[in-house]
Amino acid sequence: MTLRDIAERLGCRLDGDGTLEIHGVAGIEQARPGDLTFVSNPKYRALLPSTRASAVILHEKDGGGPPPGCAVLWSEQPYLTFAQALELFAPADRPAPGLDPHSAVAVDATIGDAVSIGAFAVVGAGASIGARTLIYPHAVIGPGARIGEDCVIHARASIRERVVLGNRVVVQDGAVIGSDGFGFVKQRDGTHRKIPQHAAVIVEDDVEIGANTTIDRPAVGETRIHAGAKIDNLVQIGHGVSIGARALLAAQVGIAGSTVVEDEVVLAGQVGVAGHLRIGKGAVVTAQTGIPNSVNAGELVSGYPAIPNREWLKSSAVFRQLPALKKRVAELEQKLAAMEEQLAAWRASSER
Amino acid sequence: MTLRDIAERLGCRLDGDGTLEIHGVAGIEQARPGDLTFVSNPKYRALLPSTRASAVILHEKDGGGPPPGCAVLWSEQPYLTFAQALELFAPADRPAPGLDPHSAVAVDATIGDAVSIGAFAVVGAGASIGARTLIYPHAVIGPGARIGEDCVIHARASIRERVVLGNRVVVQDGAVIGSDGFGFVKQRDGTHRKIPQHAAVIVEDDVEIGANTTIDRPAVGETRIHAGAKIDNLVQIGHGVSIGARALLAAQVGIAGSTVVEDEVVLAGQVGVAGHLRIGKGAVVTAQTGIPNSVNAGELVSGYPAIPNREWLKSSAVFRQLPALKKRVAELEQKLAAMEEQLAAWRASSER
Amino acid sequence: MTLRDIAERLGCRLDGDGTLEIHGVAGIEQARPGDLTFVSNPKYRALLPSTRASAVILHEKDGGGPPPGCAVLWSEQPYLTFAQALELFAPADRPAPGLDPHSAVAVDATIGDAVSIGAFAVVGAGASIGARTLIYPHAVIGPGARIGEDCVIHARASIRERVVLGNRVVVQDGAVIGSDGFGFVKQRDGTHRKIPQHAAVIVEDDVEIGANTTIDRPAVGETRIHAGAKIDNLVQIGHGVSIGARALLAAQVGIAGSTVVEDEVVLAGQVGVAGHLRIGKGAVVTAQTGIPNSVNAGELVSGYPAIPNREWLKSSAVFRQLPALKKRVAELEQKLAAMEEQLAAWRASSER
Repeated sequence: MTLRDIAERLGCRLDGDGTLEIHGVAGIEQARPGDLTFVSNPKYRALLPSTRASAVILHEKDGGGPPPGCAVLWSEQPYLTFAQALELFAPADRPAPGLDPHSAVAVDATIGDAVSIGAFAVVGAGASIGARTLIYPHAVIGPGARIGEDCVIHARASIRERVVLGNRVVVQDGAVIGSDGFGFVKQRDGTHRKIPQHAAVIVEDDVEIGANTTIDRPAVGETRIHAGAKIDNLVQIGHGVSIGARALLAAQVGIAGSTVVEDEVVLAGQVGVAGHLRIGKGAVVTAQTGIPNSVNAGELVSGYPAIPNREWLKSSAVFRQLPALKKRVAELEQKLAAMEEQLAAWRASSER
Repeated sequence: MTLRDIAERLGCRLDGDGTLEIHGVAGIEQARPGDLTFVSNPKYRALLPSTRASAVILHEKDGGGPPPGCAVLWSEQPYLTFAQALELFAPADRPAPGLDPHSAVAVDATIGDAVSIGAFAVVGAGASIGARTLIYPHAVIGPGARIGEDCVIHARASIRERVVLGNRVVVQDGAVIGSDGFGFVKQRDGTHRKIPQHAAVIVEDDVEIGANTTIDRPAVGETRIHAGAKIDNLVQIGHGVSIGARALLAAQVGIAGSTVVEDEVVLAGQVGVAGHLRIGKGAVVTAQTGIPNSVNAGELVSGYPAIPNREWLKSSAVFRQLPALKKRVAELEQKLAAMEEQLAAWRASSER
Repeated sequence: MTLRDIAERLGCRLDGDGTLEIHGVAGIEQARPGDLTFVSNPKYRALLPSTRASAVILHEKDGGGPPPGCAVLWSEQPYLTFAQALELFAPADRPAPGLDPHSAVAVDATIGDAVSIGAFAVVGAGASIGARTLIYPHAVIGPGARIGEDCVIHARASIRERVVLGNRVVVQDGAVIGSDGFGFVKQRDGTHRKIPQHAAVIVEDDVEIGANTTIDRPAVGETRIHAGAKIDNLVQIGHGVSIGARALLAAQVGIAGSTVVEDEVVLAGQVGVAGHLRIGKGAVVTAQTGIPNSVNAGELVSGYPAIPNREWLKSSAVFRQLPALKKRVAELEQKLAAMEEQLAAWRASSER
């Protein structure tokens, strides 16, 4: 593809030789001649003079000017333009439509147009698969599940019975949607009786669910992932949880049962949230934070237990100085005791 | 089902119209006419007057009396009665007995009565499957594994070679039982040699194992999950670990090798336990706690590293005040220094 | 096998009856007559007099001498000798070479000599599998993936399209190598656009990857696991991460995107590392530590956020005393205030 073609498709103003052949997109340090690279984070701007890329996507307001010998695609949103450029060069991995002869699709399942179902995939009784959805090998779609259009269900995902997925949902390998919630009643003999977990799981449009992530179904009510939420790998979503629209959950986050995570919340890696809480709209939670209480909309919290991030940063700085602080307190006590003694001596002498 | 039928089956005294048709069980806020709901946690009692449910399960000692227009099932244990009511309404999802033509069952495997083996499930050489056990599609039962009666092995679970499961064990999708323990010897050239991990994994009766949970096998000895333990999703059980009877392990807990978790211990979400420790009977560990040392029976511990929960709560409260505390210490130092100076001045003047 | 045979194969000097029949290897407490046991950790030396084992592997410099009635294999490296002894007794679980009739191997895949491919395993178009590699049932090898010689790919592992594995790589059940990295661009309407993640994942020789672990592929550049690294279960490796040679990552560790973990680093269980960092060669990170900044080579760090382990231990000890420390500060303030009052009174009286 020529640089001119790329510039046109990405809607960018071009500075440089439009006839250049571009072979791919690469990071600024790894790029070779024939590659297109980008600068979005200003931190990486300093690496630009030494890049070997043939062209770079820069912000329209970038003041540094084009590096020597490197064409420029000017963009209002360089990171978005980078993503779009990657789409132009994406490998054509898309499996062909049709049912693999080794798949097992129930006779009463409804299969849309141009659906691809891979080897050893299972589609249960009464399930439906929307048009153009890709079911990779070994995915298991349970009885009565409903999957929308243009979804991508990667290898070995489990979409359990009666789970509902919207359109354009992406499920990575090994993810489990609709496993039984962890619900038991303690009986008088000390054993635990399983509470049947058969209620609904609904994943709305444009959600992405990471590899080996697990999303439980509840006993009553529903577990719901709202439109546009993105969930990374190895995340645990407890039964009856609601994840808000456009929320971002990084890897290894865990959310206990019945908690509501509102729209546009960001939970960084390994965050844990207790059950029956509400994390307010747009709240941001830094990595490894443990949340025992609800969080207000828009808050930035950290720590275990979670407190406002500013406080946590300050307290963490003092944490490191605790041995010194303790020593200072001990010194104060000694000095004070010495002074008290001295004063007592003075008083005694003055009374004499 | 009529309310009278339900009351009889659940052994509850009925207050209200026994001829009412009940269609399902629902949470107090989501319930609609025709639903049965329940109040177990007193926190939700206040929602009762506004429920649209046709009937409610209440504790026999509930002083609030029946809400207007809502029948009551009186129970000594409302939460247990709720679980039993859910069982009455559970969907008939049970797969039919028999071997799916797409399954691969070794000729010398022993298959009990009324076993169901789903599409693409694998049962290895010499394995045995007890009566009425359900093996969902894509489960892989390794050579020589022994699975008891009335078990439910969900899709894509791995029961590795020679692993033993008791009766009524439930394994959720994608769980791995019997993966190699993480054991290596560092050699003189700095590389690590794998220690073969071929010893036993035993899962006793009535255990539940969550989706994508992993349970390792040891080099020598055994990994054992005792009867009635319940393990949530994405939990890691290291090689040689013993989990006690009726223990409860919430999601994303990790237990390092050779640790003994005694009976009835409760580990909340994301707890980590180091290796070669003992967590005493009935100990309770709050979420995200990190345990570097053994814990006594009955203790309630929290924090990282774990300390008694009462202490942790108090220390955590002070943690938040650390910047203020540090400032107070600095002020004390200044005041004391000023006072010392003043006293020195007095002394000097009094000696003059 | 006689003890003399074992001693010869392990290269150990034998003290005791070489004609003894040895049936297996066992831990010092579980060993029965006919078993070989070992003492590597001096902590377990005290259990030796009471072992029922017929023979024990001891360090050549062990001063305790052989226990009565127990033969000794003297070794310079007892733990290594123990591992080698286990290899002698490992069960012959190895599947036979050949393609299972229920597997689905693309016609243009390249399959080496003596490869074993299990039931329902999938090998995609253009993939290659090196000699003597074992592919267990239900493993999914994507199109264009390249797997080296003598690898073991356990059941239900996903090796995604174009992923490259070296020789002697072991992948436990359910691991996912090459899932899409978690990369999105926020668009002006608040939704997130997926950044295509199609770049390389390379796993070098002698790496082990645990059950249900996930390793993401990046948008550009590569994710690389260097030779000899060992990764436990349920670990998350973000896109573009580099894991150094001989590094050890315990269970449930999470590494965010683009971070470089250098050679011989040790990360204990549940450690979290933020993105775009460098963990220097040989650094050791204790369990549950959260790492927001790069770590120097050779450092030992702990805590959240991570600080040098020595400091963390001291600060953690004071953390527990915080309520007492706060009380001491309050007492100091009272005493100081009392003293100030007294001094003011004196001054007033002396001025009178």
